[in-house]
Amino acid sequence: MVNEKLIFVTNDDSYASKGFKAAIEVARRFGKVIAIAPDTVQSGKSQAITLFDMLRLREISKSEDVEVYSLNGTPVDCVKFALDYFLKDRKIDLMISGINHGANSAVNVLYSGTMGAAIEAAFYGIPSIGLSNLDHSDDADFEASIEYGTRIVRSVVESAHPTPLCLNVNIPILPVEQIKGIKICRQTRGYWKDEFYKRTDPYGRDYYWLTGGFDNLEPDAEDSDEWALKSGYVAVVPIQVDLTAYSQMEQLREILK
Amino acid sequence: MVNEKLIFVTNDDSYASKGFKAAIEVARRFGKVIAIAPDTVQSGKSQAITLFDMLRLREISKSEDVEVYSLNGTPVDCVKFALDYFLKDRKIDLMISGINHGANSAVNVLYSGTMGAAIEAAFYGIPSIGLSNLDHSDDADFEASIEYGTRIVRSVVESAHPTPLCLNVNIPILPVEQIKGIKICRQTRGYWKDEFYKRTDPYGRDYYWLTGGFDNLEPDAEDSDEWALKSGYVAVVPIQVDLTAYSQMEQLREILK
Repeated sequence: MVNEKLIFVTNDDSYASKGFKAAIEVARRFGKVIAIAPDTVQSGKSQAITLFDMLRLREISKSEDVEVYSLNGTPVDCVKFALDYFLKDRKIDLMISGINHGANSAVNVLYSGTMGAAIEAAFYGIPSIGLSNLDHSDDADFEASIEYGTRIVRSVVESAHPTPLCLNVNIPILPVEQIKGIKICRQTRGYWKDEFYKRTDPYGRDYYWLTGGFDNLEPDAEDSDEWALKSGYVAVVPIQVDLTAYSQMEQLREILK
Repeated sequence: MVNEKLIFVTNDDSYASKGFKAAIEVARRFGKVIAIAPDTVQSGKSQAITLFDMLRLREISKSEDVEVYSLNGTPVDCVKFALDYFLKDRKIDLMISGINHGANSAVNVLYSGTMGAAIEAAFYGIPSIGLSNLDHSDDADFEASIEYGTRIVRSVVESAHPTPLCLNVNIPILPVEQIKGIKICRQTRGYWKDEFYKRTDPYGRDYYWLTGGFDNLEPDAEDSDEWALKSGYVAVVPIQVDLTAYSQMEQLREILK
């Protein structure tokens, strides 16, 4: 295949994660890959940016087809550094974020560093695809994620339709042959119910660990991404970033008049 | 005034910031205040959560009417810690986030720790108001922010209408008497154009600072929050958190079929 495209790859599990290598494997099928990923795990970093610390870039590996760098920042820092500095004068055809170890369905899209990066790339007008494997273990099996990630990237780059700007793709924990297909979904309504585990350090001082579980407010909604994943589908949610609650504007004018 | 309400306050500039004290001053006018804020500056932390580090709580001050604590986490950590642990069995009537030193208008809503916290509180069904002063200096004047913050909180808590779940309020840098009023707006379209400043450390190694400026894609849109602020109004955007791009779903079904 002619490597005519330039694909930028990042993630939030660091350049050393298995999922990052899986994302590069997907991207490689479509062109030259330049990847800049955080040098440490940045899960749950959302759209965070680094304002009060300096950033350092490190070359990890470099071949004709794939260049890999790490940056000591957040996923969004990686995107900004790539698009506004490192690759400033080059045309980037596509951005792939992931493949995340763990789900970014439902409201997780707002906490996710993987999706934070994908949303950031979309701000620059670059079509971005966030890929997440529901298996969050370090040694997760990425076969189905690579297979479906490739199918989705191919459909997007080969489509005659205008390219969607940002996709949130989640892949269930199933062998490829047991996945029922791809389902276009909306973000499931729900939220995290957190629990704080209290511990005491050897000096008698308390500290806490944040943990929790997702509470699905609409488990039977067949157009939701959680339902699709539970039912064995790859869930794809097209993403927009206007948080305005238009339906509330008229009432708010009454309240604040 | 009878202190019948319980108000939770947090921010992203830390418990030591001038804006945090201003937010407590607003909240105090409506009831008892419990405030938990980050112990260090957390600007630009978005909806980030702390997954791989422990959290410690510290009492800063405590009176009958106002309790202040710090937590070594993000703004969203503070909200989760308050609502799912520290205040778990108490009814919280309102959450105020801020008052931020600096604008959270337009797409800044997605990077902002102040708004990340306000959005998080809304997930719990708690009406939340994010207040941001366009003056980002440490010694910013909060008089107009306190005045308009108070007016908006009063309108919300006294309204017969159902309470809006999350408001993004930005206050221009003007004396109270020069502010033209309150304008209900939508999020301005635009994005940050970043610049990276390259420096070299005393050992000859490169590092970078992220900086940038906001590029407003619709400077003349009179219903946008940027226009309102530029024109001397307090801008209020009602916030929702469904990122689904519904308008793209049908075309995406074609692309991925």
